[in-house]
Formats: sequence, structure tokens, C-alpha cells
Amino acid sequence: MSKVGIVAYGTIPFTKEDHKIESILHKSTNDLFQKNPNINKKEIDAVLVSTNNNSKYLSPILSEMVGIQPKIAHSIESLCNSGTNSIVSAFSYISSGLADMVLVSGAERYDSPGQILEWDNSRGEFKHPIFWASIFSKSYKQDYGISDERLAIVSVKNHKQAKQNPNALSKKTYTVEEVINSTKLTDDLRLLDCSRPCTGSASVLLASEDMAKKLTDPPIWITGIGQKTTSAGFTKNTSLSSLESTKLAGQSALKMANHSISDIDVAEVHDAFSVCEPMILESLGFTNPGEGMNMIKNLYETNNFKINPRGGLIGAGHPLGATGISQTIEIVQQLQNSAENRQTDNPKKGLIHNMSAAATSSTVLVLEK
Amino acid sequence: MSKVGIVAYGTIPFTKEDHKIESILHKSTNDLFQKNPNINKKEIDAVLVSTNNNSKYLSPILSEMVGIQPKIAHSIESLCNSGTNSIVSAFSYISSGLADMVLVSGAERYDSPGQILEWDNSRGEFKHPIFWASIFSKSYKQDYGISDERLAIVSVKNHKQAKQNPNALSKKTYTVEEVINSTKLTDDLRLLDCSRPCTGSASVLLASEDMAKKLTDPPIWITGIGQKTTSAGFTKNTSLSSLESTKLAGQSALKMANHSISDIDVAEVHDAFSVCEPMILESLGFTNPGEGMNMIKNLYETNNFKINPRGGLIGAGHPLGATGISQTIEIVQQLQNSAENRQTDNPKKGLIHNMSAAATSSTVLVLEK
Repeated sequence: MSKVGIVAYGTIPFTKEDHKIESILHKSTNDLFQKNPNINKKEIDAVLVSTNNNSKYLSPILSEMVGIQPKIAHSIESLCNSGTNSIVSAFSYISSGLADMVLVSGAERYDSPGQILEWDNSRGEFKHPIFWASIFSKSYKQDYGISDERLAIVSVKNHKQAKQNPNALSKKTYTVEEVINSTKLTDDLRLLDCSRPCTGSASVLLASEDMAKKLTDPPIWITGIGQKTTSAGFTKNTSLSSLESTKLAGQSALKMANHSISDIDVAEVHDAFSVCEPMILESLGFTNPGEGMNMIKNLYETNNFKINPRGGLIGAGHPLGATGISQTIEIVQQLQNSAENRQTDNPKKGLIHNMSAAATSSTVLVLEK
Repeated sequence: MSKVGIVAYGTIPFTKEDHKIESILHKSTNDLFQKNPNINKKEIDAVLVSTNNNSKYLSPILSEMVGIQPKIAHSIESLCNSGTNSIVSAFSYISSGLADMVLVSGAERYDSPGQILEWDNSRGEFKHPIFWASIFSKSYKQDYGISDERLAIVSVKNHKQAKQNPNALSKKTYTVEEVINSTKLTDDLRLLDCSRPCTGSASVLLASEDMAKKLTDPPIWITGIGQKTTSAGFTKNTSLSSLESTKLAGQSALKMANHSISDIDVAEVHDAFSVCEPMILESLGFTNPGEGMNMIKNLYETNNFKINPRGGLIGAGHPLGATGISQTIEIVQQLQNSAENRQTDNPKKGLIHNMSAAATSSTVLVLEK
């Protein structure tokens, strides 16, 4: 299998603005090309669009707007991990030899239809993720004796880190008390425990080994890929305090990269709600079951940005189809030591964790320079 | 690059019935597994859903319904050639080594939102494909001196061939006079010149070389792939009487398969409207520019099912996301000599042509046993 590298990226600030999806999509793609005038658009073989938006034919539309005539062009949807699904697809096109260079652009509007999964009656009366997040929170707190105050540190940490991310939706920091006193949505969930849907876009360009070496210094290589879908319905999850698909995807990705979790220097993980962050860290093996909050509290108190340096979904905002791509860009910047105020200490290996629908599906990527 | 074979398929009759997309999708997948009890669902690494339907997370939903826990799971959309885009993606997952076996299931409802491309203002007042089809028809007839009566033979031939396809939407045959006298939609288009959107589903299972040899006799190999997107907007087409993306995709596919067009024994081509069939045959090089109707008339008069044996989109119906997969199944059946009353004379090499939005995007596949 030939190596595949990430050679360029483009981003825009995440907002609550009301624009057409084609325009949102165009903005980060345009940013990518403006930052990298050395890229020859004629050499781009595929354009993959990651979105939950209902508009059709977005890849050919984006291609026409930016002046690409690709071989391969389509949209990819898998709710909240559409972005990393698209990146893995791009990897496979290059690795198989069908493409040398692939543009992956993700975009979403604040009112994305991907926020609700109509099909899943097991989510109860309201089909919003708030339902499963409440159950996860109750279960996790009971299983491990975690207080609301302790769990609130996830939100405090990620809002603090987002303050160093110029593209983040959130511009504020909060105390534990402010999180606890924010609007109570359910018995186990406050408003500030939730990531917020928003308008955003993010783009990356992937290339084959030869092309990557020509275009970037240093290219960032995708060395590990793991994916797993255990079900679609929330109640099919085998556990309410660990994430099976995340565990399996993490194991596969680390095995492919030939690393253990202790080799990972920096990670973006899918904190759709506060409770997700400790559950993910435990499922990936960063720490033992029930000890995720100890790790998070320690990172917060030592001002260590190792987990979710850009502020996670809670701080940066969650434009569904763009999220996995935005997470990937953060790890690229970290590995290239270009993350400015968010920069961690010269990381060599990074990890991205992106999931959908109560972790019924997860993607894990390992990146290295 | 390792070989990739098609090892199983499932289909259902195309109808105007009103079912939920999840149910439609499930039916052809279920048919595939019922026909092939030797397939171990645990060995399926990816489930790709091809559709224009707005429902989300269909791949995990389908996976849960049929009892698969895949690594890779997402939906793919590119209007009318979503199906072959999904098959090429499946090919790349296997060829890259990320997957050994991939299920591709396509489904659509009769009221698919993929019939209208809201974005394309260049289609004029009504955004339906009828607009571009009328302009193509007028232009093609003028350029080559083709009468309405002569063009009507496409519809007559394909309805006749569909009569031998138990899954076809159309159950009737028509004379040239009946086509000409059917409801006039525009100056250059009659109702019977149009393929009809419908409810349908089709599934194929792709596998790596070793697995394919174990599972099927004979496996049908995908030996050629060509794809091209020239634009999204209809008016960006460089010609109104040939199809640039089809020409380029056809050349790439034949080059990869190391064949010339004269080696192809049987083909499914995307006759969304009567005029498309001669234009496609000419763009693929089956015949010279302007001579497509001579070839079609000759095939019709000699009862030769070489082009669109299952009745094409005009005869079989056009469930957008399922169409490319259904075309592929027909070529598999032809190469396995199992096409019953539609069987052509022991074909060795087959071709599939599937396109979107006035041929702004085309896919061509070459299949061999």
C-alpha cells in the first residue's frame, strides 16, 4: 500500500451565519487554494464532499466553482463522522492507484438535518442526541461515582482551549459553577455540556507519497485507520459507560500504524457532550475505565492542550460534515508546529477520533510527520 | 492492484409503490443474501448506500437490519450516477487493502429529490431534466438530420427489451406511431422518450480476488474504470451533440481494461431520454458521430439485445441511486449467461455507462469473466 499524505488545508471561522451550503463549502476550499498557490488543480483526480445537507450534486458544483474537472466526484454522508469517512475514502482512492490527489471538503449549516435521526425510535420521545447524551451521563456518573461538578471540567477545559482558536464558535471561558448553573436541559445535562451545531466548512488535500513530498514540507502521513459501526440504534449499544465502536476503531488504527496509545502525543476526540470525552479517552485506552476525568482534570490544571487543543466540539462548535475534517486539520497543524497559542510540545504522532449517533459508529485516524 | 470481482447481487421489481427508503433498501439486500446463503456477513468490511434520498445514516441502519457490523459505512450521492460512484468506491476499498468484501446497496423512491437540480439556473425556468433533454434532442436532430420518427426507435426498442425483464417498470411495447403520438412535453420531447422515476433497489457484493474465487463460479471482474466530471451546470457542456464526460470516461475505462470498444459484446448505457442513447453510443465510439440511430435501428430489426438488454432506463425505469447498480447486475447476468430471455450470444466483455445531470458527469465500467 503506497503512503498517503495530507498536503494542504483550508478553514473558515465557525459561526451561526445563514449562508447557502454551496457558498459555505466554497469558502474553505478557496482558503486552501489561496494558502497553496503551488497546487495544480488539473492534478486533482477526485473531489469528495462531506455533508448532511440535503442539496444534491455538491461535488460537481464545488468543482465547477473552483475550476476542477475531477474523475471522481460525489458526496458522502454518515451523520457526524461524515468528515473522517470522506478522508478514509480519499485515502483508499490514492492507495488503490485510482487517484493521485484528492480534495475533501466538508460543510454544514447551523440548521443541519443531520442533528435528528428520525429512524431511531429507541431514542424516545425526542430524537435529538440530548436523549442518548443524558442516558450516557447518568450511567457514567453512577458507574464511577462522578459528580456533575467533576464532569463540568470537560466543558471548562474545552472552552478555555477554544479561546486560543480563532475559528472557534465560542469566544468565552466558563467556570465550573457557570457550567452547572447553565440551562438545565435534562436531569443530567446542562446547555454548556453540549456542543452546538453551527455553520462551518473545512477542506484538506490528500496526495500520494511522491506528490506529497513535492508539495509540502513536512507532509503529514496517515499511518493508521480504524473504523467500526456496531449498530444504528442507540439501544443496541452493548454498554452505556464505554464505547464499543470507538474501542474497536482505535485498536485497528493503532495496529495499522504499529503504535500503542501511549505513543500518541496529541489527540482530537469527539466531545459532542461533556460525558463523551472521558468515555472516549477510556475506550481508546488513554486511561483506565472510570479514570477519564482524572486525566482531564490533570490536563486542565497543568494547562496541557494534549486533548482537543482547538477546543473540541464543545468549544469550537460542531458543523457536522466539517467536524472530522476540522479535527484532522488541527492535528496537521500540531504536527507541523504551526498551531500558535494552541501548540503542544513538539508532537510526533497525533490521533483523530470522530463518531456518529451515540458512538454507534466511530472512525480513528493516526497521523505522523 | 489486486483484482476485484462481483460475487453476488440482489434485485426487486421496479414499481411506483410508496414505501419507506429503509424498507426499499432492505429488500434487494435481503434478496442478495437469500440467493447466496454461503456468504458470511461477518466478512463484510464495508456497506455503501447509493441514494438521493434525504434520510440520513442509511448504511448503519441497513447494516443493523441485515446483521452486519461493518468497518466502513456511509451513503454516497452524485444524482443519477450515485450507483456506479459507489461501486468504484467499493473497488478502491478492496484494491487498497482496507476491505476484503463490500456490500453496495442502492435505493430510491419514485419521488426522489434527485430529479431536480435546484442549483442549476442555466436549465431555465423549470429545473427538471426535461429542459436539457429537449435542447439535446433539438440540437442532435438538426446536426445530423434525424427525424422524430427515427429517434423514437430508441423507445420502441427499449420497451420491447424491457418486456423480457421481469423487474422492469414498463410492461408494454409501443410502435413508433405510439411514441410520436404520446403526450408532447416540449417541441422535441414526448412522454415515451423519457425514462420514468420509480421505486426500486439493487445490491451487489464485491470481493477481493481470493475471496471472489471461493464464492462464485465464475466471478465477474471489474477490469476497467473511467470517471469524469466536466461541470455541474448544463450550459457548461462544450457540445450539445456529443457527451464530453462520457467520451473521456469511456477512453479511461477501456485503457485500464486494455481493450478497444469493438471488444465489448454487451452494454448498459444511460438512456435517460431517447436522444441520450445514440449520443452515448457515438461518444463511447461504438459508432461514428451521427450514426448512432443506424446502429440502434439495425439492432432493433435484427432482435439483437446488445445495447440495454434489460430495457434501459426508458423501459426498466429509473430509481436514481439504484440505476447504476441495476445496470451492473444486468451485465453480470449477461456474462454469466443467466439473463434468460434477454441473454445475448455468450458475451465475454461487458460495459456499463452511467451518467448524471446532462452528462456533466459520467462513469464507465468494463466487466469480464
